[in-house]
Amino acid sequence: MGQDKMIDILKAVQRHDIDVDTARQKLVTNKEALPFADLDLERQQRTGYPETVFGEGKTAEQITAIIEKFRENEQVVLCTRISPEKAHYVSQKIAQAKYYQTARCLVIGDKMTASPDSYIAIVSAGTSDIPITEEAAVTAETFGNRVERVYDVGVAGIHRLFEHLDVIRGAKVVIVAAGMDGALASVVGGLVASPVIALPTSIGYGSSFNGLSALLTMLNSCAEGVTVVNIDNGFGAAYSASVINHM
Amino acid sequence: MGQDKMIDILKAVQRHDIDVDTARQKLVTNKEALPFADLDLERQQRTGYPETVFGEGKTAEQITAIIEKFRENEQVVLCTRISPEKAHYVSQKIAQAKYYQTARCLVIGDKMTASPDSYIAIVSAGTSDIPITEEAAVTAETFGNRVERVYDVGVAGIHRLFEHLDVIRGAKVVIVAAGMDGALASVVGGLVASPVIALPTSIGYGSSFNGLSALLTMLNSCAEGVTVVNIDNGFGAAYSASVINHM
Amino acid sequence: MGQDKMIDILKAVQRHDIDVDTARQKLVTNKEALPFADLDLERQQRTGYPETVFGEGKTAEQITAIIEKFRENEQVVLCTRISPEKAHYVSQKIAQAKYYQTARCLVIGDKMTASPDSYIAIVSAGTSDIPITEEAAVTAETFGNRVERVYDVGVAGIHRLFEHLDVIRGAKVVIVAAGMDGALASVVGGLVASPVIALPTSIGYGSSFNGLSALLTMLNSCAEGVTVVNIDNGFGAAYSASVINHM
Amino acid sequence: MGQDKMIDILKAVQRHDIDVDTARQKLVTNKEALPFADLDLERQQRTGYPETVFGEGKTAEQITAIIEKFRENEQVVLCTRISPEKAHYVSQKIAQAKYYQTARCLVIGDKMTASPDSYIAIVSAGTSDIPITEEAAVTAETFGNRVERVYDVGVAGIHRLFEHLDVIRGAKVVIVAAGMDGALASVVGGLVASPVIALPTSIGYGSSFNGLSALLTMLNSCAEGVTVVNIDNGFGAAYSASVINHM
Amino acid sequence: MGQDKMIDILKAVQRHDIDVDTARQKLVTNKEALPFADLDLERQQRTGYPETVFGEGKTAEQITAIIEKFRENEQVVLCTRISPEKAHYVSQKIAQAKYYQTARCLVIGDKMTASPDSYIAIVSAGTSDIPITEEAAVTAETFGNRVERVYDVGVAGIHRLFEHLDVIRGAKVVIVAAGMDGALASVVGGLVASPVIALPTSIGYGSSFNGLSALLTMLNSCAEGVTVVNIDNGFGAAYSASVINHM
Amino acid sequence: MGQDKMIDILKAVQRHDIDVDTARQKLVTNKEALPFADLDLERQQRTGYPETVFGEGKTAEQITAIIEKFRENEQVVLCTRISPEKAHYVSQKIAQAKYYQTARCLVIGDKMTASPDSYIAIVSAGTSDIPITEEAAVTAETFGNRVERVYDVGVAGIHRLFEHLDVIRGAKVVIVAAGMDGALASVVGGLVASPVIALPTSIGYGSSFNGLSALLTMLNSCAEGVTVVNIDNGFGAAYSASVINHM
Amino acid sequence: MGQDKMIDILKAVQRHDIDVDTARQKLVTNKEALPFADLDLERQQRTGYPETVFGEGKTAEQITAIIEKFRENEQVVLCTRISPEKAHYVSQKIAQAKYYQTARCLVIGDKMTASPDSYIAIVSAGTSDIPITEEAAVTAETFGNRVERVYDVGVAGIHRLFEHLDVIRGAKVVIVAAGMDGALASVVGGLVASPVIALPTSIGYGSSFNGLSALLTMLNSCAEGVTVVNIDNGFGAAYSASVINHM
Amino acid sequence: MGQDKMIDILKAVQRHDIDVDTARQKLVTNKEALPFADLDLERQQRTGYPETVFGEGKTAEQITAIIEKFRENEQVVLCTRISPEKAHYVSQKIAQAKYYQTARCLVIGDKMTASPDSYIAIVSAGTSDIPITEEAAVTAETFGNRVERVYDVGVAGIHRLFEHLDVIRGAKVVIVAAGMDGALASVVGGLVASPVIALPTSIGYGSSFNGLSALLTMLNSCAEGVTVVNIDNGFGAAYSASVINHM
Repeated sequence: MGQDKMIDILKAVQRHDIDVDTARQKLVTNKEALPFADLDLERQQRTGYPETVFGEGKTAEQITAIIEKFRENEQVVLCTRISPEKAHYVSQKIAQAKYYQTARCLVIGDKMTASPDSYIAIVSAGTSDIPITEEAAVTAETFGNRVERVYDVGVAGIHRLFEHLDVIRGAKVVIVAAGMDGALASVVGGLVASPVIALPTSIGYGSSFNGLSALLTMLNSCAEGVTVVNIDNGFGAAYSASVINHM
Repeated sequence: MGQDKMIDILKAVQRHDIDVDTARQKLVTNKEALPFADLDLERQQRTGYPETVFGEGKTAEQITAIIEKFRENEQVVLCTRISPEKAHYVSQKIAQAKYYQTARCLVIGDKMTASPDSYIAIVSAGTSDIPITEEAAVTAETFGNRVERVYDVGVAGIHRLFEHLDVIRGAKVVIVAAGMDGALASVVGGLVASPVIALPTSIGYGSSFNGLSALLTMLNSCAEGVTVVNIDNGFGAAYSASVINHM
Repeated sequence: MGQDKMIDILKAVQRHDIDVDTARQKLVTNKEALPFADLDLERQQRTGYPETVFGEGKTAEQITAIIEKFRENEQVVLCTRISPEKAHYVSQKIAQAKYYQTARCLVIGDKMTASPDSYIAIVSAGTSDIPITEEAAVTAETFGNRVERVYDVGVAGIHRLFEHLDVIRGAKVVIVAAGMDGALASVVGGLVASPVIALPTSIGYGSSFNGLSALLTMLNSCAEGVTVVNIDNGFGAAYSASVINHM
Repeated sequence: MGQDKMIDILKAVQRHDIDVDTARQKLVTNKEALPFADLDLERQQRTGYPETVFGEGKTAEQITAIIEKFRENEQVVLCTRISPEKAHYVSQKIAQAKYYQTARCLVIGDKMTASPDSYIAIVSAGTSDIPITEEAAVTAETFGNRVERVYDVGVAGIHRLFEHLDVIRGAKVVIVAAGMDGALASVVGGLVASPVIALPTSIGYGSSFNGLSALLTMLNSCAEGVTVVNIDNGFGAAYSASVINHM
Repeated sequence: MGQDKMIDILKAVQRHDIDVDTARQKLVTNKEALPFADLDLERQQRTGYPETVFGEGKTAEQITAIIEKFRENEQVVLCTRISPEKAHYVSQKIAQAKYYQTARCLVIGDKMTASPDSYIAIVSAGTSDIPITEEAAVTAETFGNRVERVYDVGVAGIHRLFEHLDVIRGAKVVIVAAGMDGALASVVGGLVASPVIALPTSIGYGSSFNGLSALLTMLNSCAEGVTVVNIDNGFGAAYSASVINHM
Repeated sequence: MGQDKMIDILKAVQRHDIDVDTARQKLVTNKEALPFADLDLERQQRTGYPETVFGEGKTAEQITAIIEKFRENEQVVLCTRISPEKAHYVSQKIAQAKYYQTARCLVIGDKMTASPDSYIAIVSAGTSDIPITEEAAVTAETFGNRVERVYDVGVAGIHRLFEHLDVIRGAKVVIVAAGMDGALASVVGGLVASPVIALPTSIGYGSSFNGLSALLTMLNSCAEGVTVVNIDNGFGAAYSASVINHM
Repeated sequence: MGQDKMIDILKAVQRHDIDVDTARQKLVTNKEALPFADLDLERQQRTGYPETVFGEGKTAEQITAIIEKFRENEQVVLCTRISPEKAHYVSQKIAQAKYYQTARCLVIGDKMTASPDSYIAIVSAGTSDIPITEEAAVTAETFGNRVERVYDVGVAGIHRLFEHLDVIRGAKVVIVAAGMDGALASVVGGLVASPVIALPTSIGYGSSFNGLSALLTMLNSCAEGVTVVNIDNGFGAAYSASVINHM
Repeated sequence: MGQDKMIDILKAVQRHDIDVDTARQKLVTNKEALPFADLDLERQQRTGYPETVFGEGKTAEQITAIIEKFRENEQVVLCTRISPEKAHYVSQKIAQAKYYQTARCLVIGDKMTASPDSYIAIVSAGTSDIPITEEAAVTAETFGNRVERVYDVGVAGIHRLFEHLDVIRGAKVVIVAAGMDGALASVVGGLVASPVIALPTSIGYGSSFNGLSALLTMLNSCAEGVTVVNIDNGFGAAYSASVINHM
């Protein structure tokens, strides 16, 4: 598109239809000719990731409208932070919408095909973290990744973690979700050689300060190879994990 | 003392040397007759703990003077947070003073005799925590406890911890010191049945915020049986551990 | 279990049914052979504590299912942070469930038998702290401890505290709950010789910052022998107190 | 002064030397005629408090110059936060300067005469608070107040406080200084009927966060009648106490 | 009471009905003989302040019960933080209850008689602060103080403040309430000679952080003679002001 | 007014109706004679800005009453933070009220006439920021400014921003609104020569801490020429922008 | 430059020296052809502001090298946060360097010519703020602005402010610097019609938290027309003020 | 090793040299037989990363001793946070030590060989970030990665970033370092398809709060594919980047 427009202008110069100054002006002011559009499209094409809609703070009507616009390009669309009520509304308008209630995700269209050769392990400390880990899991699957879930293996009973060590160590990239003390990320980080994405959750009370304790724990992980995303950002953890898994 | 004074007043009432009203007045206003003095003395006698001097913010002269006053009662005196310079000054004035440089502790008089039957395990994540853990260790030893040190067993290489599990699990009470992510306390808390005293240290940088990250981790420990003391409070951890160990 | 499996493998080696390499592989990968399972079971058996369910963020259905699973082992089950609505639902499914409304606790099965020789004193500053102190009290009682409640003795009227000093000083371990200024922990800490577990509550407003003021006060207690748990963590305070009381 | 100028203008109107419009203009634009100058002077005269110089961040030369300017009015001058080096410099230039080293205060001229009928009690938790409490004490004395010092009576050994209860309860206003847990303010607040000014100090380490813990404790005091000043603001506490004591 | 009991014991000693040791034991353990009860009663009698109930977190039933107990002594009772619903419930049970809706206060019995000679000025920055200032005003009036309200005189239009300067400067003590920037306290503090009690309110949004901005402003007031209470603590400000006004 | 009163007093002096002292007294105490009233009116006249009502925390009745009072002067009135319910109530009472639902603003009377020569550009990062940017836009338009909206051009897809660079660079002053990372303000600040007013929004979750992350980003902008207003303060950003645009 | 390069490419297309595809490739990859370079240069030319060097964290050698590079374009160079030692070093290498010690600024070359018609007023609360306000003043003067300094007019003695009201109100833009309570910004904001740039300083101690208290005060200013820069950012305040003053 | 030991035990069982029970006991208690040792060694062998010494808080003697121990295995050793003084000391003891002063890193032995096919781009906002980015660069190079440095391309002059877009977009993984507003990470995150590791630095002053502002910005990045490490953790960013680059 941007490329076509640019070539049109250059051909007009070549044909002497427009003079050099007019062409220069068009190139600078006409945004379609800007290299950025190209770059951005290229990125979209390379990564091939579906469009994503963050549902919090948007009405069901707005979400429906955005999905419909994205769907014109026939692409799969992922919506996160969708309440059951909003999901119900959208589903009535858009037949292909599939709702994952625990994950609060809505997927319109077919999930991308996952490569069977590698997978993302999603490890979580407790059952209360599951809404966040499922947001990560559904995101990763929609983006074409095989996911292995290893839930409820918090460090208070560390034998539970060791029982699943093979699965965790076999992953190409590991997401570790934990609230409260967030200690699981450091322990897993010390046991695997693959990159670990630490996902602090807001689970806890009192001095957990809505996930701050887990966030700080993870940022200060004594294990190497651990990077961190925002509190409760299951989508972001999965996105980064997907980029690495597809390498 | 308070008891003697009180008995004197009562005997004077009995002897009709003073009337009831005067006696009541004396009992209320004369602080020596207050039960608190007794209570406090009793506590001192029961716990039998040595006097302790917090050296930070005190001059070497002040510390020497306080020690000399305490020494009149022939008791052992423990001084914490003593710089080498202050230790040197005090040692020249008081012959029995023994300085523990890493722990920054000065002990005047003989350590109390430790019971051989039980011990306190002091577990630490890294070598940088040692000044704090040694403050705890010297405190505990001075207060008459056997101490087993298990240092440098942070969760990033968790096999190091398991190599010492027997020692840790054999302790009557366990102190776990860690800075940065503070995750060790939760892991140890999940592996032992004895009380765990978590000791956050200020080791770290950036978002460790001088120990805040470790403190919050430990307060939010997902393991049961873990209680927490102030950042870098090696003395306090050892004091509480000693009370429990002497039960 | 883990032990049996391990012996099976070793016997197979002994019988030359499998070769050494296969055995090594089985020992490393087969998690049932790991010593951790043993260790953990051992802990469970030694402490003998009932299973506990943290009810916040779980549905009544989930709680019921967890209880039923735990009950297969005939053990008593403690559920904390249970709203009246959830308690009502569970009680209809599980006959033996007994609900403690103020404590927001649900106990299924008989409380463990308390030793008559020692008790835990639970001291609180104000009447608003009672939901938290009752969570502690019900937890301690369920875990087989005698509990003495000394409520509403905040330092603003310190004579109230002294009126109960005998009870407090007679305890093997003392839990002190306070919100707002949290000062009670330091005062009690200075008056008793037993270990004090400070339990900050979120009672207060404005600059209490939901319990932060009380938490910091307690972490900085000028009295020795005080350790701290998370804000509103009545369960955790009672668990640690119980471990100490059973020594 | 402002008053004189104003009268001059009005007399000129009366004498028809200037017209009404010119007079109005002069009154509005000429700042000497503004009521604020009067008001402010009046305040100075009513309170009669000496000028005060906050020494931190000022050079010895600047401090000397300010003192000399203030001294033209023959008034006593109080300088706070003066290091020994600066005090030495000033003393060489200004003969009457008297330095209070612990309080880090410099007083030039005679302290104001204290009324013998009432006094300010300054109560402190520990010996480390003394530099701040002495700043308060020297300030109060310079401002013409009798001061009773009750130092080192922290709540960890509460009998020490009760031994001095008569002195504390006899004061017209009480300043309570404490660092760390800051609990002393609440305890004293519950024992006296006079106003209590709580003075948090930065004494402590770790989670005392340079006085934040004591500040929050005092702001959340469960005792009534307690107001708070900034951390380490010994001068401010004494100023307010002095205003109340002189009522 | 405590006094009577004490005298009984002493008379028994005098009569040789009990020996000295038994008497000492009774004095120490029998709490009714403790001087603190006396002290506290004395305080209650001296200050003569009504009982106060903090209504937040208490049910209407609890509040009613507490009021009824206090009313046995025929004293006026003040309840703060009472919602209209709770007020309605209480009013149906207790005839004399009078509800101040804006202040969210309930007063049972007659307000104490105010001295006509002096008054408390309550100054506020904006109309949104009024629920808090009215809590202060109703408290002060109930405690027997004349109150002058100077509302909505924030520093953004400082002429409004100057229009009321006479009233403010005539007060024996001034309460200054402000949210957001909290700047009013410093400005008033610079204009009056009487003690100023700064009352930060939680009015504001964004970086006001529920009153933290106003609280910090007030603690750092560049004007002398300003002390601070907790955010939204209208009751506390009025209590301290009342103590000073009654001097 | 104030001026008239002042002249009356001065004329009375001229006529010798009152003496100089009485006149001085009147000038000082009679607030109507204070220059501030004049100054303030002058300001109002110079800026010519409509009255503004902050609707949060005010009832619909109060808002209506305030509007009616302001409308006596025939001026346009702007109300911000008005919920649909309140808007509905007011609209029934005041016919000219026009409600802007997204902006949550109510405008009574005609917007001021905008100068066609210059405009304010309002740039926002995402669609969730629109309620805040519309508050800014409606405010600016009501205050007589032409506004160009450039919405949803966050830095994650920076080509979107460049497509609108001409419009942004053509503005006399630019408001940049962003939540989450707040990075847009720095990028725009580096691309334009006009003043930039950064408007952090509370959009985000987890460690955005309700706008704190965006606020800090903007305060630390590496681009020059950027100043900042409070989180979500669309009105304040527009007010400052309007002052600059009218220069 | 970028423009020349672009025209060269287009002319080559016109001359058929290169084909359209090659031209497109060159335009996209050759950064000299990017419109951004143009835009940026244009900005530099329009604003005409001198280059600025932030001296903190740079060595004297580095600073000298940067100045020399900038000086090739014959432009004036401003260096901020320069210690006397660094200034001394630079001055020996570069003859035209002029050092402003209080402002810690170094100016190389002639300050830009100020328009006589308008000026920036810099208002400060106390003498301790002067290093920051002088950084602002020297910056503004170097950038070609007339500056009027109104220092030491903090709100604790508000009459001082009113004495200078004419100067302040006459400015085209006002910078208000204050530490501690930061209240001056709100008061000035309410008295002037021109834009106010609030400059919080780190002056203060205790709960001023190094300028946080003043920063929050200013962000929450109840006066309209106030925007805020970072703590101690005298340069930034002056830069923004200069942009507005040159309008 | 662990593997050998395990096989020895199993062979002894096979040979009937020891019975099954003894074997089991040996396997459980003899730590050398624990699978963890194996696992850990395996990890070391797979990742092949050199040992790393964090130099802060260690003496030059301690660092030398640790290096010498590691060197027995002939491996390259990386030391971070090494002051010039410590580097000087170590270099005198260990001949092969090479010091990188800006990066404050000491490398003993040859850097690992980098694969020529892919590289890590390290992008930084300003020159002050270079000590941190060089720590990252030297770490990455020592671990066998090709590094492309793109320094001083902060968003305030965004054209600088675009000039290097090809290099940045060509990297397999990108590290983005920034202090102050930290905005660069979001901008780069929106322009590349590879994983971005955001590295906040403590560069800044005032409300940057030692890197907190940049940290929060990066955690809240509106661009997808961005994960974050601790403030100033150049080593950690490079470690994670290296793991990904070696995939």
